[in-house]
Amino acid sequence: MKLASYVYHRGKSYGIVAADGLIDLGRRLGPRYPDLKTLLAGNALSEAQDLCHQPPDIAVDQVTFLPVIENPGKILCVGMNYAEKRKEFNEVNPAPTLFIRFADSQTGHGMPIVKPGLSAEFDYEGELAVIIGREGEGIPASQALSHVAGYSCYMDGSARDWQHNWFTAGKNWRQTGAFGPYLTTADEVPNPHDLNIRTWLNGRLVQNDNTGSMIHGIAALIEYISTFTRLHAGDVIITGSPGGVGKKRTPPLFMKSGDCIEVEIEKIGHLRNLIVDAVEYSMPGSSHAAA
Amino acid sequence: MKLASYVYHRGKSYGIVAADGLIDLGRRLGPRYPDLKTLLAGNALSEAQDLCHQPPDIAVDQVTFLPVIENPGKILCVGMNYAEKRKEFNEVNPAPTLFIRFADSQTGHGMPIVKPGLSAEFDYEGELAVIIGREGEGIPASQALSHVAGYSCYMDGSARDWQHNWFTAGKNWRQTGAFGPYLTTADEVPNPHDLNIRTWLNGRLVQNDNTGSMIHGIAALIEYISTFTRLHAGDVIITGSPGGVGKKRTPPLFMKSGDCIEVEIEKIGHLRNLIVDAVEYSMPGSSHAAA
Repeated sequence: MKLASYVYHRGKSYGIVAADGLIDLGRRLGPRYPDLKTLLAGNALSEAQDLCHQPPDIAVDQVTFLPVIENPGKILCVGMNYAEKRKEFNEVNPAPTLFIRFADSQTGHGMPIVKPGLSAEFDYEGELAVIIGREGEGIPASQALSHVAGYSCYMDGSARDWQHNWFTAGKNWRQTGAFGPYLTTADEVPNPHDLNIRTWLNGRLVQNDNTGSMIHGIAALIEYISTFTRLHAGDVIITGSPGGVGKKRTPPLFMKSGDCIEVEIEKIGHLRNLIVDAVEYSMPGSSHAAA
Repeated sequence: MKLASYVYHRGKSYGIVAADGLIDLGRRLGPRYPDLKTLLAGNALSEAQDLCHQPPDIAVDQVTFLPVIENPGKILCVGMNYAEKRKEFNEVNPAPTLFIRFADSQTGHGMPIVKPGLSAEFDYEGELAVIIGREGEGIPASQALSHVAGYSCYMDGSARDWQHNWFTAGKNWRQTGAFGPYLTTADEVPNPHDLNIRTWLNGRLVQNDNTGSMIHGIAALIEYISTFTRLHAGDVIITGSPGGVGKKRTPPLFMKSGDCIEVEIEKIGHLRNLIVDAVEYSMPGSSHAAA
């Protein structure tokens, strides 16, 4: 089952992405589960499943996609988690590299990604997103996948000239993290570490790997993260990007207004966004980006 | 005016800390402003001020303090922001070092600080916390202090053996960030860069500096942060710790169960907490802490 969050007729809703359209869950389950996050928290995927043969209510092209989970409590991002990426960035520390995104740094499938006005190095990173379905703390790796509701694609747009070793300022510009198009439930993904993952910039294949190349697998990441912080339904773990990012190319390859960026993960989905300039925001000063 | 969040008779509330007790604002303003964050978001400090001569409702020792803001939308922490601390950690990057705390890593004044069960290097950091009162994005430094509601003390408990260059895992264990006792409104702090800041561990003075020693001042931090992410009422910026932390002492000095840690900032408050072990949590495995 594929579950999307979207805006339809100016109202937010969510539903099942079926072959011939969207089965709206907001109007059917909304009184109890107003959004996808609360559906997951209510352990109610089976209630959604019971509705998956209903006739669709909306054509997919009639909605505006939101981030799969619009307001996760926690978004944990794993850096340097593919061998090629680690080589590119000379990362040697064996612990998972973790940074945090704020929820308001996200955008949905088909929505604009906003190039930070003060970045000259806005880079792409195609990643597999893991959406937590069941809360827990101190989750052993052996049980970790039972806490996963499903998976999605993520384009972790990165202002490299603001990133530093601690990531925060490079990864939290508004509308730089594209999350979608939808959550593919875990039952449809028997092995999340055997999925081709590819990124295209303007149709050119720029990242091409397989989730089997992750250094820290999903179960190990959930064990590690849940050791120090409690995970809740709707929390998101973004599992890192393969090599091939623009910063480490010769010459470098960064995203600019008008570009089209796509992330496709086998069995999971195909995420597509256009880059726009942040023209409507004029920031004070112009020299925030220290080396 | 000093404003605290607390639990009284098992209910959460907030109020004014007066000389002879607490003037409860929850029962007076609660229908419109259920907590301190919504009071700030409603730009209603003046409504609280109008009540500051009411007779107190509760003795201070009858309440359990919560973090000043229990659930900030964003908690941004500045690392390496005092010259002595930068020397201790050999930090040379000129940009503000920023990491993020989740709200559930916090605790209140007088409440236990929980030593992470899997850390052998649980360290103290006394810091000045800035609480945002008015939202904004792209805030120039010249206007930044008008977005500040007030200040508080923060004890940024740090699991050094989980910290790495990216901080996340070292700074997000539950109940490791003590925030209080209360918000002192900005009108009582004419110059937030001329305040003595001191930390005591079991009565021994271990950090002793002045907020004038910050590398990046509060206005510059607000300008920098609001360049890439929108700040909202109730958001918190923790401005970094002076030198003298336990990790860099010979021999090292870490916190253990039974210890008493105190942070005092001139004009702002005196925060005091006892350290307890996380005995009620048994984490899986025992080798999460990579070097």
